[in-house]
Amino acid sequence: MSDTDLAVAGAGRRARGGGGSARRAERTAVSLETAKFIQRNIPNFEILNEEALQIIEWNAETVLEEIGVNFVENPEALKRWKDAGADVQGERVRIPRGLARKLCATAPREFTQHARNPERNVQVGGRNLVLAPVYGPPFVRDMEGGRRYATIADFQNFVKLGYMSKWLHHSGGTVCEPTDVAVNKRHLDMLHAHMVLSDKPYMGSVTEPSRAADSVEMSKILFGSDFVDQNTVMTSLININSPLTFDGIMMGALEVYAKANQAAIISPFIVGGAMAPVTVAGTLTQVLAEVLAGVAYSQLIRAGAPVIFGAFVTSIDMNSGAPTFGTPEAAHITYGAGQLARRLGLPYRSGGSFCGSKLPDAQAAYETANSLNMALLAGVNFMLHACGWLEGGLVSSYEKFVMDADQLGTLHHLAQGVFMDQNGQGMDAIREVGPGGHYLGCAHTQANFKSAFWRSDLLDYKPFETWAEEGSRDTMQLANERVKKQLNDYQQPALDEGIREALNEYVAKKKASMPDAFI
Amino acid sequence: MSDTDLAVAGAGRRARGGGGSARRAERTAVSLETAKFIQRNIPNFEILNEEALQIIEWNAETVLEEIGVNFVENPEALKRWKDAGADVQGERVRIPRGLARKLCATAPREFTQHARNPERNVQVGGRNLVLAPVYGPPFVRDMEGGRRYATIADFQNFVKLGYMSKWLHHSGGTVCEPTDVAVNKRHLDMLHAHMVLSDKPYMGSVTEPSRAADSVEMSKILFGSDFVDQNTVMTSLININSPLTFDGIMMGALEVYAKANQAAIISPFIVGGAMAPVTVAGTLTQVLAEVLAGVAYSQLIRAGAPVIFGAFVTSIDMNSGAPTFGTPEAAHITYGAGQLARRLGLPYRSGGSFCGSKLPDAQAAYETANSLNMALLAGVNFMLHACGWLEGGLVSSYEKFVMDADQLGTLHHLAQGVFMDQNGQGMDAIREVGPGGHYLGCAHTQANFKSAFWRSDLLDYKPFETWAEEGSRDTMQLANERVKKQLNDYQQPALDEGIREALNEYVAKKKASMPDAFI
Repeated sequence: MSDTDLAVAGAGRRARGGGGSARRAERTAVSLETAKFIQRNIPNFEILNEEALQIIEWNAETVLEEIGVNFVENPEALKRWKDAGADVQGERVRIPRGLARKLCATAPREFTQHARNPERNVQVGGRNLVLAPVYGPPFVRDMEGGRRYATIADFQNFVKLGYMSKWLHHSGGTVCEPTDVAVNKRHLDMLHAHMVLSDKPYMGSVTEPSRAADSVEMSKILFGSDFVDQNTVMTSLININSPLTFDGIMMGALEVYAKANQAAIISPFIVGGAMAPVTVAGTLTQVLAEVLAGVAYSQLIRAGAPVIFGAFVTSIDMNSGAPTFGTPEAAHITYGAGQLARRLGLPYRSGGSFCGSKLPDAQAAYETANSLNMALLAGVNFMLHACGWLEGGLVSSYEKFVMDADQLGTLHHLAQGVFMDQNGQGMDAIREVGPGGHYLGCAHTQANFKSAFWRSDLLDYKPFETWAEEGSRDTMQLANERVKKQLNDYQQPALDEGIREALNEYVAKKKASMPDAFI
Repeated sequence: MSDTDLAVAGAGRRARGGGGSARRAERTAVSLETAKFIQRNIPNFEILNEEALQIIEWNAETVLEEIGVNFVENPEALKRWKDAGADVQGERVRIPRGLARKLCATAPREFTQHARNPERNVQVGGRNLVLAPVYGPPFVRDMEGGRRYATIADFQNFVKLGYMSKWLHHSGGTVCEPTDVAVNKRHLDMLHAHMVLSDKPYMGSVTEPSRAADSVEMSKILFGSDFVDQNTVMTSLININSPLTFDGIMMGALEVYAKANQAAIISPFIVGGAMAPVTVAGTLTQVLAEVLAGVAYSQLIRAGAPVIFGAFVTSIDMNSGAPTFGTPEAAHITYGAGQLARRLGLPYRSGGSFCGSKLPDAQAAYETANSLNMALLAGVNFMLHACGWLEGGLVSSYEKFVMDADQLGTLHHLAQGVFMDQNGQGMDAIREVGPGGHYLGCAHTQANFKSAFWRSDLLDYKPFETWAEEGSRDTMQLANERVKKQLNDYQQPALDEGIREALNEYVAKKKASMPDAFI
């Protein structure tokens, strides 16, 4: 089904229905175009040589064998590790050299995450890059309203903006924390929004094993029970409590997902100098040790369960203790971890629209562009936080969401590499134009100009005078207007009414079954 | 002589002199620290494979042989080419396959450009990267004054800001066009400012052969005549009039510099789709053909004259015809041209703080960061426009100058690569801290924290509440304050009074010798 078909079908089911909305859907259908996940045709940037990689791999195994990792409040996990051959003392698990890597070998090199619209399926791993939005901020910010606690209405808006974004392949997970909904119920509303307001792939809840189970149940309603049993329809974020600690709640969620053959990102969460050594090689060693242990554990739950080698790493301002973003040290780690992931044969998650700025200003953009560029060249396969991140992850920014989402277009074009066919070589054009000529009118330019250059849908390319006449708007103002336009143009993708009702019923029933809790 | 010595010596010669200014010089001496040019310890990013490189090299020779290049209004050049074995018809020079490359072989792989302060000497070529500021804008912009024609006072301010910048190795050339000085005299004031207000290396004038000759003469006053005869003390920008055209004025300036053994950047100036084919491979072919012809010509003037393979390339917005910056296509060309330059054995100039934005906002920073990152990984050896560029090069921005200059610090740290010694591996730290611990207080962190992470001198790392209390400043406001502080703190580097007087005299005499001209 084409994008236009979908939009028209969706519009047809809307309450206000009728010819007007169908025509409107046709007019706006072009903005629903979603680019396919990125398939790289460029090399990765390999910052570490073979010797450095071998040292880090050796050291990581030393960490697992001699220091070990803690599996906290999780007796079952300790038993599994013991049975697998680890040395278990209290909650400390020491893993003999080579065991974790051997266990990791059953994890797939790549996998398909299915979307309810099959055109939006993504292939995670290999030379691909899948882009998903910001995850986790308790606050939102926009130009008029400033910074405030996020609500479920904000959450729904960000899902809509993600759905409208041409360059975003994935709807993500906690695009912001809907703080006006009880903690023990908000996962239901969040999943419902992703399932109903978008048709892109999404993430499941990880804040309680029972909430992971809800995520699987709701997915079975959306996709059908058999389909979910046989296919991966969620990729969820399992953070490691660095250094070297695997807490019971996160592992409980991982267990639910691995058993259901749903994907998990096994991800150290590291502010360098605080949760890992202050040096790049030391951090990479710890990251590798943690991922080896986490992925091995996922395979102890179910051999073959899809997982991603995650690395959330940033540096720290040693003056204030604030995490810092877009820094050279974060780039070193991101490049190096990519090499380690490829040698392990696992898909790799890192990078994002990281910044420490309080506003979507130049600082935010420098830091974000540094991060996005390095992530592409580092061989990242799954980029969470690819747009919308502000203030060290405390804030989901409306304006920055669309600003970053626009920049993601550059990654798509960069990844295409250089076309070397006859048309790409352009010798006919050089012959036609010759010394002192002009290419704008030549046949080769006319034949290629539509696709030759990436073009921003947001940034200002106007002459100075026009720009000044139109109000001398900066990027934040342009983005603010784009946010409003996209939310105004948004139309829900088609969804079977029976499924919609079943999802509504599941959420309502679950919510009614328990009192509100705010932890 | 150390930085502190220099600052104190300089202060001692100031008119107001005395103990107060010497003490002030000591206090501010720290801000005069200039990083050494970047010496890369990371690989280059090689986007083209061997086959692609060979195709482009073959095609470039085909262009030179079959289409040829024009040397305009320059009968001497035509004669030189004919004597060298080219086929000359009118102003068209067709160069037999292999001849230009053979002539290029006498150009040095790298060279030293001397500064009047030997600590500021730069080594151009090899694995090094030298950073120089924006070049050429007729306008300036600052937060209070907005956009206006540049004056000699602005020019002097930008030279001072460049001198104060830790991460800038080079004082540059036309940091803005001093439009309040006659066109035929402004080169004198510009050179005087670089020579007196800074002790970093600088560029010479190229707008007339006679102005290039003035640049050599003034350099002889500054460095001594013998020194200039034997050493390279200027690197100047010789643009090629793409496509495939070498005009008499630029070539006249090149001739002056090559004869004097002074360095020139031989640089196609290309807006893709206008001055070169709309495809990346086609543009690279033309760039290579143009540089081969230009560098070969420099070696016909004087074998062994230092030159740089230049590539100023940007894309175009096919809707409006405006040049666009920080785009994927510009990155492809920058990466590819670096490979071609290395295969030719020449230093490589490309990259810069390019952007199309009218303001130093998020657009400016995205585009600039895209460009700076690609330039580092592309193996650029000399980066003109490394800071301060705004509005497609029409504007030198005060605020963006210091914003970009701060970001140049990230390139220095990125280029260091990953330290793999025992300290870098950090195994002692991982052992000391263990699962669930915290690294902030551990011995390894304490020993390394000062140098472990790059830290911006400009960007905001404060907690939200502090930032809000201090006025919720964005990056432009922070930069505006930094500009004022740097101009206020600025003190002239020491200069022999006899040299200063001789420079003053040369400028005064030259100016008096001709009427003002405004073309």
